[in-house]
Amino acid sequence: MEPVLFYGVPHGCSFGSIVALEWLGQPYRLSRIDMLAKTKSNIYGRVNSQQQTPTLLLEDGQPLSESFAILQNIAARDLSRKLGFAQGTEAHDRLNQMLAYLHTSFHSAFASAWTAFKLKDGDPAIEILRELAREKAAEGYAYLQRHMKGREWLVGDSKTIADAYLIGIARWGEDLQLFDLKREYPEFYRYLQKLEADRAVMFAHAIEDGQPAATSGQFLGHVDLAEIEPRLAA
Amino acid sequence: MEPVLFYGVPHGCSFGSIVALEWLGQPYRLSRIDMLAKTKSNIYGRVNSQQQTPTLLLEDGQPLSESFAILQNIAARDLSRKLGFAQGTEAHDRLNQMLAYLHTSFHSAFASAWTAFKLKDGDPAIEILRELAREKAAEGYAYLQRHMKGREWLVGDSKTIADAYLIGIARWGEDLQLFDLKREYPEFYRYLQKLEADRAVMFAHAIEDGQPAATSGQFLGHVDLAEIEPRLAA
Ligand SMILES: N[C@@H](CCC(=O)N[C@@H](CS)C(=O)NCC(=O)O)C(=O)O
Ligand SMILES: N[C@@H](CCC(=O)N[C@@H](CS)C(=O)NCC(=O)O)C(=O)O
Repeated sequence: MEPVLFYGVPHGCSFGSIVALEWLGQPYRLSRIDMLAKTKSNIYGRVNSQQQTPTLLLEDGQPLSESFAILQNIAARDLSRKLGFAQGTEAHDRLNQMLAYLHTSFHSAFASAWTAFKLKDGDPAIEILRELAREKAAEGYAYLQRHMKGREWLVGDSKTIADAYLIGIARWGEDLQLFDLKREYPEFYRYLQKLEADRAVMFAHAIEDGQPAATSGQFLGHVDLAEIEPRLAA
Repeated sequence: MEPVLFYGVPHGCSFGSIVALEWLGQPYRLSRIDMLAKTKSNIYGRVNSQQQTPTLLLEDGQPLSESFAILQNIAARDLSRKLGFAQGTEAHDRLNQMLAYLHTSFHSAFASAWTAFKLKDGDPAIEILRELAREKAAEGYAYLQRHMKGREWLVGDSKTIADAYLIGIARWGEDLQLFDLKREYPEFYRYLQKLEADRAVMFAHAIEDGQPAATSGQFLGHVDLAEIEPRLAA
């Protein structure tokens, strides 16, 4: 069976892996995981012991977790699509550097605001935690806006898995009502808008929202956990 | 000129890149950055705009930042040393997964305790922040101890850049006096002890401590920032 991506909703960092799979253009399926569910699924616990998304179930029934590893796996399936680059090249180093920055500093900049989001209204910690996230994420947006000066894409001259990942997490600044990106980071915002117009990105939004989604790749439909269970490697 | 690794002291995550360079066995130099210095170096700001360590200055004068990217660059210089694996193989995916886990969840588990470390004695936030770190890092140590069951090394059957990186950050639990690893995670502790006896690890400790250090690779000595400035690409 083709690979299956377990993606989390709402608004998770799995978004980038969906976009990358669309760009790759090879057959794949999706399986939806509700990250806000009160009880955690035992079956998903076998796929990802930390109950995190995304995870890619490979053809041999082994789950591959960690978005960084999943994205590089997708890119390596067909280097001619230039979603990633050959090991040992300068472009490969630059892609690893950008992916690592996005997965460490930029992703974690929002962590305290997500913690605040789960607190009860009126908790005095909320403002402290949101301020901390605003400060760290502002550094991230400023760095990325500087980086994009004179560039069309994050790494190299065409879209890569780094752009796919970024478009899934850059929105958190607005989701969490920390920033008005259009006003505060106008040039960076223009780059994000260009990505929003990409068919794979529109597809991933529709998937997240549970709307009819038109694949421009080879999406073969959803499967649910119960159907997948027999396929899991022991 | 051979590559130069900028490493941070005290006890930074650069440690793993020093170990990996020793294991690689090719010529390299080191440049020491005091992370606690009151004033930040302008020259280092040109190497790493976020003033973070590690950074690897490449042969062409371009700096490569982000430990993940540096470690994969080191491994790719000679795949026959098996510090990393060829792109497109299952071992490469597993190494990316482990490196990503260590650089995201495990590294960030300690973040709030490092924040607490910098607060004034008696600040009531200290205990809250330390408790948070203890909880998250405990999950990490428990996961890694389970993962090591029946294994000699983190990925595959010989030491890789993942082991190099881990030995530089796993010590934070004791540095921050959050854990007694020997008592709480005895099997994981045994694996760490095996690494501590490795010549490259002993070398990296001596380097950090400013002691005479015996290379088992091709360490060619320290260079300071002023000497390096002319080499930086514009
Ligand atoms: N290091 C992991 C982190 C993944 C992650 O943070 N996933 C979030 C969604 S964006 C999640 O699963 N959160 C739920 C949880 O941690 O319990 C990766 O990069 O894949
Ligand atoms: N994402 C970076 C993080 C590096 C990092 O956290 N470096 C620490 C030392 S372990 C540092 O430079 N801290 C000083 C600072 O952030 O200002 C990487 O993996 O290389």
